Amino acid sequence: MKLPKNTFKSRLNIEKQYGCWAGLTTGYAAEILATVGYDWLLVDSEHAPNTTQSLLGQLQAIAPYHSHPIVRPESSDKDNIKRLLDIGVQTLMIPMVETAEQAKELVSAMHYPPKGIRGVGGGLARATRWDAIDNYLNIAGDELCLIVQIESSLGVKNAEEIANVDGVDAVFIGPADLSIGLGHPGNPYHGDVQSSISSVIDATLSAGKACGILAPVEADARKYMQMGCSFVAVGIDISLMRSAAKENLNKYLGARSKSNNSGTY
Amino acid sequence: MKLPKNTFKSRLNIEKQYGCWAGLTTGYAAEILATVGYDWLLVDSEHAPNTTQSLLGQLQAIAPYHSHPIVRPESSDKDNIKRLLDIGVQTLMIPMVETAEQAKELVSAMHYPPKGIRGVGGGLARATRWDAIDNYLNIAGDELCLIVQIESSLGVKNAEEIANVDGVDAVFIGPADLSIGLGHPGNPYHGDVQSSISSVIDATLSAGKACGILAPVEADARKYMQMGCSFVAVGIDISLMRSAAKENLNKYLGARSKSNNSGTY
Amino acid sequence: MKLPKNTFKSRLNIEKQYGCWAGLTTGYAAEILATVGYDWLLVDSEHAPNTTQSLLGQLQAIAPYHSHPIVRPESSDKDNIKRLLDIGVQTLMIPMVETAEQAKELVSAMHYPPKGIRGVGGGLARATRWDAIDNYLNIAGDELCLIVQIESSLGVKNAEEIANVDGVDAVFIGPADLSIGLGHPGNPYHGDVQSSISSVIDATLSAGKACGILAPVEADARKYMQMGCSFVAVGIDISLMRSAAKENLNKYLGARSKSNNSGTY
Amino acid sequence: MKLPKNTFKSRLNIEKQYGCWAGLTTGYAAEILATVGYDWLLVDSEHAPNTTQSLLGQLQAIAPYHSHPIVRPESSDKDNIKRLLDIGVQTLMIPMVETAEQAKELVSAMHYPPKGIRGVGGGLARATRWDAIDNYLNIAGDELCLIVQIESSLGVKNAEEIANVDGVDAVFIGPADLSIGLGHPGNPYHGDVQSSISSVIDATLSAGKACGILAPVEADARKYMQMGCSFVAVGIDISLMRSAAKENLNKYLGARSKSNNSGTY
Amino acid sequence: MKLPKNTFKSRLNIEKQYGCWAGLTTGYAAEILATVGYDWLLVDSEHAPNTTQSLLGQLQAIAPYHSHPIVRPESSDKDNIKRLLDIGVQTLMIPMVETAEQAKELVSAMHYPPKGIRGVGGGLARATRWDAIDNYLNIAGDELCLIVQIESSLGVKNAEEIANVDGVDAVFIGPADLSIGLGHPGNPYHGDVQSSISSVIDATLSAGKACGILAPVEADARKYMQMGCSFVAVGIDISLMRSAAKENLNKYLGARSKSNNSGTY
Amino acid sequence: MKLPKNTFKSRLNIEKQYGCWAGLTTGYAAEILATVGYDWLLVDSEHAPNTTQSLLGQLQAIAPYHSHPIVRPESSDKDNIKRLLDIGVQTLMIPMVETAEQAKELVSAMHYPPKGIRGVGGGLARATRWDAIDNYLNIAGDELCLIVQIESSLGVKNAEEIANVDGVDAVFIGPADLSIGLGHPGNPYHGDVQSSISSVIDATLSAGKACGILAPVEADARKYMQMGCSFVAVGIDISLMRSAAKENLNKYLGARSKSNNSGTY
Ligand SMILES: [Mg+2]
Ligand SMILES: [Mg+2]
Ligand SMILES: [Mg+2]
Ligand SMILES: [Mg+2]
Ligand SMILES: [Mg+2]
Ligand SMILES: [Mg+2]
Repeated sequence: MKLPKNTFKSRLNIEKQYGCWAGLTTGYAAEILATVGYDWLLVDSEHAPNTTQSLLGQLQAIAPYHSHPIVRPESSDKDNIKRLLDIGVQTLMIPMVETAEQAKELVSAMHYPPKGIRGVGGGLARATRWDAIDNYLNIAGDELCLIVQIESSLGVKNAEEIANVDGVDAVFIGPADLSIGLGHPGNPYHGDVQSSISSVIDATLSAGKACGILAPVEADARKYMQMGCSFVAVGIDISLMRSAAKENLNKYLGARSKSNNSGTY
Repeated sequence: MKLPKNTFKSRLNIEKQYGCWAGLTTGYAAEILATVGYDWLLVDSEHAPNTTQSLLGQLQAIAPYHSHPIVRPESSDKDNIKRLLDIGVQTLMIPMVETAEQAKELVSAMHYPPKGIRGVGGGLARATRWDAIDNYLNIAGDELCLIVQIESSLGVKNAEEIANVDGVDAVFIGPADLSIGLGHPGNPYHGDVQSSISSVIDATLSAGKACGILAPVEADARKYMQMGCSFVAVGIDISLMRSAAKENLNKYLGARSKSNNSGTY
Repeated sequence: MKLPKNTFKSRLNIEKQYGCWAGLTTGYAAEILATVGYDWLLVDSEHAPNTTQSLLGQLQAIAPYHSHPIVRPESSDKDNIKRLLDIGVQTLMIPMVETAEQAKELVSAMHYPPKGIRGVGGGLARATRWDAIDNYLNIAGDELCLIVQIESSLGVKNAEEIANVDGVDAVFIGPADLSIGLGHPGNPYHGDVQSSISSVIDATLSAGKACGILAPVEADARKYMQMGCSFVAVGIDISLMRSAAKENLNKYLGARSKSNNSGTY
Repeated sequence: MKLPKNTFKSRLNIEKQYGCWAGLTTGYAAEILATVGYDWLLVDSEHAPNTTQSLLGQLQAIAPYHSHPIVRPESSDKDNIKRLLDIGVQTLMIPMVETAEQAKELVSAMHYPPKGIRGVGGGLARATRWDAIDNYLNIAGDELCLIVQIESSLGVKNAEEIANVDGVDAVFIGPADLSIGLGHPGNPYHGDVQSSISSVIDATLSAGKACGILAPVEADARKYMQMGCSFVAVGIDISLMRSAAKENLNKYLGARSKSNNSGTY
Repeated sequence: MKLPKNTFKSRLNIEKQYGCWAGLTTGYAAEILATVGYDWLLVDSEHAPNTTQSLLGQLQAIAPYHSHPIVRPESSDKDNIKRLLDIGVQTLMIPMVETAEQAKELVSAMHYPPKGIRGVGGGLARATRWDAIDNYLNIAGDELCLIVQIESSLGVKNAEEIANVDGVDAVFIGPADLSIGLGHPGNPYHGDVQSSISSVIDATLSAGKACGILAPVEADARKYMQMGCSFVAVGIDISLMRSAAKENLNKYLGARSKSNNSGTY
Repeated sequence: MKLPKNTFKSRLNIEKQYGCWAGLTTGYAAEILATVGYDWLLVDSEHAPNTTQSLLGQLQAIAPYHSHPIVRPESSDKDNIKRLLDIGVQTLMIPMVETAEQAKELVSAMHYPPKGIRGVGGGLARATRWDAIDNYLNIAGDELCLIVQIESSLGVKNAEEIANVDGVDAVFIGPADLSIGLGHPGNPYHGDVQSSISSVIDATLSAGKACGILAPVEADARKYMQMGCSFVAVGIDISLMRSAAKENLNKYLGARSKSNNSGTY
């Protein structure tokens, strides 16, 4: 058996890749989303209540489909990264990376010695398909992909250094955290936020790396792509569902008081 | 503690109630849907892979919200109904009821002797809030609601008798099964199907019961309400999510070949 | 490895055995209860939301302790009984047995041909410890125990015949269902119910079988034991916990209005 | 998206297909087994403690691999079959089929009207990939496969009639149940059992259907293939693991008393 | 939809609030306990085997009831706190806080910039009801409540500084850890422990903050309330259940040797 | 109830103990493996996707059997160790210990003050059997066992100091990580690796501690035992199963192209 190709990584810098956030935390919901055809799905363990086992179930459910699963853990914890790689995650998105030093530690966490410090899982790990994959120890790194999130003013300041770290494949901008961190909560369109986004994109592209961003609004997505972003999360499963359901219901509620929308809360 | 009021039942025949199918099988997804404000949610165990425990989790998650949970089991099995009532289901929708005899057995399954054969769960059951509810044995039936589905030609033929069964609170029409059963798979608009729907609505209303139907297309929903339906499922969570996601993605894919939408399958 | 001894069965008719209902549906809660020292625990799948997997987890958790696990399924379904036996249940309590014919079918469901119709699970089943137990096919029946519940007027009428069925090891009386079935909901002390209980005990003992009952009130338990019951469920985990918690809280609430005990409900 | 091809069905009667029992009840274990390369895996819910959700997880985990998943439910229950088809099972193995009438009901349970009585799950069902598959209602039956088990003397007697039922694709012989049913528990080599096996194979092949059997012993497997069986379960995951582990441990235990192999039991 | 009111926080310093430990780790057990009427429940992830998902299920189950859920994580880990806030925890109890610096970091972990470093979950988080709550980013902090545990001699020494940290709403004393830390394992009544408790209460009240403690013994609870504690955990679900069950069983065991209480252990 | 005896610890330095890796992450699979009779099972949370709850289920499942469960967490995290001890883990194996300082912190994490910093779980913890065990606080340490893994060149260098740390009961060598760390990925037979192994064994024995190693190949196991190892993991459940299955299948595939072994991957 051959090491699964990381299709997302191989298309970085080559073509646009459209993604969607997968926040429903089950293999069942993830497979439903995978039938839609996004190039990548962000299986989120930072802001959605996943466990290692629910992430595993989602990786399995998505595996037969076109969509490449990217997993976002809640932190840079190296021991957690070890476990995620072992269950077969090939692309990691790490939140709130602020320095090149942090980025280097992430690279180290993802690779075996001498490049890094990843522990050997061998026949116990799905990553190796329990040893069915030939030569895993020597080729594993080829199909791993590291995306670091820049989403703070310190991160913006260090963007060039971060993007230039060897082993960082891409940078992903988090507009929500960046906005609040710059003093403009909920307002990514503020000039400070926009100029920060612009400077991160430039720094990333200058380093020869790919840049991505979360942009559920179409106009934003198109703007950021024009600015150089090549992988954009254009939707969030939960938001897509809630918006569609609200729009659907509102067709009928009409004049009826909407006060019944809230119960206990 | 007082027996929870069955708000859905109390509004039957009084006002229109808009519902949505909940097919994602977790309390997490159910709570998300409950924030939207539908009057009722159909937690489906006929066509979605639920267990008694996943149904329980969904009942708990929906409890604080306006939306009333209706559970659809996969069959008329009386022992399963006993278990569903014990976890606190107050409104049941039973698929494929074709005779008054079946309907009477369902009524029997839902009520304690002498009206029926339901077993006493007492302090073990969420239905009684583990005995926190006063006088549950004598008042339980007041807040239970039975919806039978008519979705076959035999059911249509017996609609009047079924609707008149004492203890049947409402009839729900299943257009998809009815269509295929009448020889028009996927075509609920065929004249035979439409006249069957019409006759079931009439029979139900004549019996003084409420009639409901699944109609995710707005024009259908409005037509059926004009024909007399008072509780309509105007959406399906999974379909709402998939449609919204496809529409979202298609904005961007443009000219790109969509052949990448299918992987293994 | 030897077939685990059914300690409950071996003590039937020899000594009193005190039991407790286990209704919390997890191995964790079951192990906690098992530390208390009851002779048997009734792991309930009739009125508590268990699945085959949660029952398995409870059997495993209880295994190292003195308490013998008895499982009560929600029905007489023979295919479900097959699955319960396969996960290692040795003693089954079946609700609402009303005729000798039903009892015979239960015996049949529990035994291999030619005595019955149980299917062979072999190396797939925990019952055989995945084939670690020698000669399981020929000795399995020795350690299985069938308790049938008599809890309806028809059952009472047929008690003698039921108790005499070969393969029925014991009869268990359900006072709550019996009361409501005889027209006295919530009142097991009514003369009709008491005389029914008495006649079932007598019929059972006459047949040389053991008789049990649920009696969380001490005076009841002592009375029924005097009448001949030898295995009595003297407690229910959920009720014990709730009662103790309420008593505990009430020490402090004192004058404060207890209206805050109910929220949404 | 196209309806997934039932590779197992398409190879029936064309080439030998080697299978393995999957009894460990998780997607994780099922994926591990799927890396081995068997043509089919029998995901067993008759003798292993699965739920609909654990079966779903196993179907998802196996999907990317060569191995075709066959699901065995615990009974012929039509409502359960409806649910299994909805989660995407394409091949069912049904235990203990004894008459042509039973076989016809199974065919009916698997097909939409007018051929059968299967209910329409539509956008709620993984079978349709939540409506991503074109024309599912009309083509679903093409990729479904029904295997009936003959494993009793009555089944043997009716083998020809059963095999000739239109919609039965294959017959699978259960030697363990057949042996005990014929009065030879644990001895499938007894002449009565062997002649029964032989007659079922002949009846099945005469009907133009494929015949399969469970034969973990190589000599048996080869013999049954010579007799006409074309799909043979040559292993059981649990047994393979336990045998290998015992053999491994015994290399070392040597002279040490093996009495330590049993703990409580 | 409005941000849920933190009823526990709003009653701090105004009235006594009685709580109970919830250690059974399921939504089912948590809802049972919530029917009792405690003002708050401590859902414990420090000493009970919870995961983020089991905590979520408990929050959902408790939501309709009077009892306010407080979650105790196993550590001060900021990324874990981010996840707990995202699933909707409003009140956190943090074990073993020993310095004002630690307390300040906890405050930082709970608040968005510029007050702290909490990451923005937005539409992915139950905290915002998936964006159904208006203006969450700006008002979130109003309904969050931080309780720090002082339960070591170093913590006692720094109690005044810790209690005075802006953003610390209350201090909770852990008598068991304090006792063992002071060299008196299992003896909270030792003079050293008592004087430490007294000094922590005084320091907390002087800082204008509320003080709580665990005191399952009534006399202790009353004493600590007299000393100034306003929220007291007067029970532990597991202990209440076990004690009640043991007392219940002991009524009957009488003379019988209790040696059967221990099995393997 | 008495504190469970740590049979593994009591046999250290007295007799050879043969172990097996348990990587399948469920109580069900763990119980199957426990029927085989290994002296110890390594329940792995470093390279297998366990949660605290799945570890608990495995501890419960193994409890009645001869095999002693050793749990390996993914890191040295002290708060995680606290939780593992609370669910009743008695023997911990900690990966990648490189200095005496780290080892001392591990000892501290496992013991109550004044020896360490472990928090008191009391009636909430399975470790104390929810307070059924007498005097737990004072005797807990007697039955706890700490195994540290030496599997890096730095660890080898510090082996003597590490082994001499009071509270370290044994050292376990990880040949896979050691090999790759020394620049010989996948080649534990390289002279550098072998001499490192030899020096760790010597250092450990000199300190009067027991030494263990993972050695699934019989010749290796025997060699390392001759060199002084007294507890050897001679198998890995997943590998045993996969190897046996592959060997089984290959008997039949014969000439057929094995290209069908890989699907998507
Ligand atoms: Mg962010
Ligand atoms: Mg239907
Ligand atoms: Mg009953
Ligand atoms: Mg069979
Ligand atoms: Mg503490
Ligand atoms: Mg290692």
